[in-house]
Amino acid sequence: MRLAEGVEWGLHCVTLAALLPAGAALPASRLAEYHDVPSAYLAKQLQALSRAGVLEAVPGPRGGYRLARPASAVTVLEVVEVIDGVEPAFQCTEIRRRGPARLPAREYRVPCSIHVVMDRADAAWRAELARTSIADVVAMLARSAPRLALEKGLRWFQEVLA
Amino acid sequence: MRLAEGVEWGLHCVTLAALLPAGAALPASRLAEYHDVPSAYLAKQLQALSRAGVLEAVPGPRGGYRLARPASAVTVLEVVEVIDGVEPAFQCTEIRRRGPARLPAREYRVPCSIHVVMDRADAAWRAELARTSIADVVAMLARSAPRLALEKGLRWFQEVLA
Repeated sequence: MRLAEGVEWGLHCVTLAALLPAGAALPASRLAEYHDVPSAYLAKQLQALSRAGVLEAVPGPRGGYRLARPASAVTVLEVVEVIDGVEPAFQCTEIRRRGPARLPAREYRVPCSIHVVMDRADAAWRAELARTSIADVVAMLARSAPRLALEKGLRWFQEVLA
Repeated sequence: MRLAEGVEWGLHCVTLAALLPAGAALPASRLAEYHDVPSAYLAKQLQALSRAGVLEAVPGPRGGYRLARPASAVTVLEVVEVIDGVEPAFQCTEIRRRGPARLPAREYRVPCSIHVVMDRADAAWRAELARTSIADVVAMLARSAPRLALEKGLRWFQEVLA
């Protein structure tokens, strides 16, 4: 099982947007430059995040993407689900309804126990991601990211937003 | 993100093995027949489960696969990890080390906060699967599976083990 590569990109872009000065926005090309990822592919993730109301696309010469809501009101789960979808990792194909013990479909009124167990794990995964906001990620970053990287990032902001 | 299709098959086969009468074993071809899945592909999952010490391959004319341990000592997580691997769904490619704010690799002494958050969710998923044993699945099945399917399964056992 593997999440789409765009999940990492989307989370980093939304986190970067949360670090922008109030009112500022970054064009897709700058977000791609900051993360050194292909602009055309990143553009799709940014458009999806914008359609989902996580980012907001600001038009005009100083336009670009910014957070559509306070970082404390955007969960990590939202970003992950926009990029990777909401389908559980376990796809039940109802193999219990095949083979010599099968019955007509109407007889299966309760979900398969294996499906239930896998769904519980999926719910635990999503609950963990839902209880962490982008503001939490920013707070963790502020404590743990290399000081010099934060300073370089800030200087880059000042240059591109000047 | 999507788990390998073999996860569903493996969980059903291990659960079926837990329902076998003491001392009995089922050949791969019979396990494939019961679940109506391709025998050649299922054989690979069964061999992997056997190598991992979840199933035991019994040689001889009445041989086949049976549980290598009591069902209460096999977790759902073990079966999932044998089939799908132990790699987390989120692969951190360290994009923080790219772009204009990048530093030499030695400066990153603490994992990326986004990576930490995703790892926590992965741990929650695995913890949920680790706290459920195959004996738990069997107990759930006994309560919730259609009675008639259990009876048909039992009759099939009696035929093929006769």
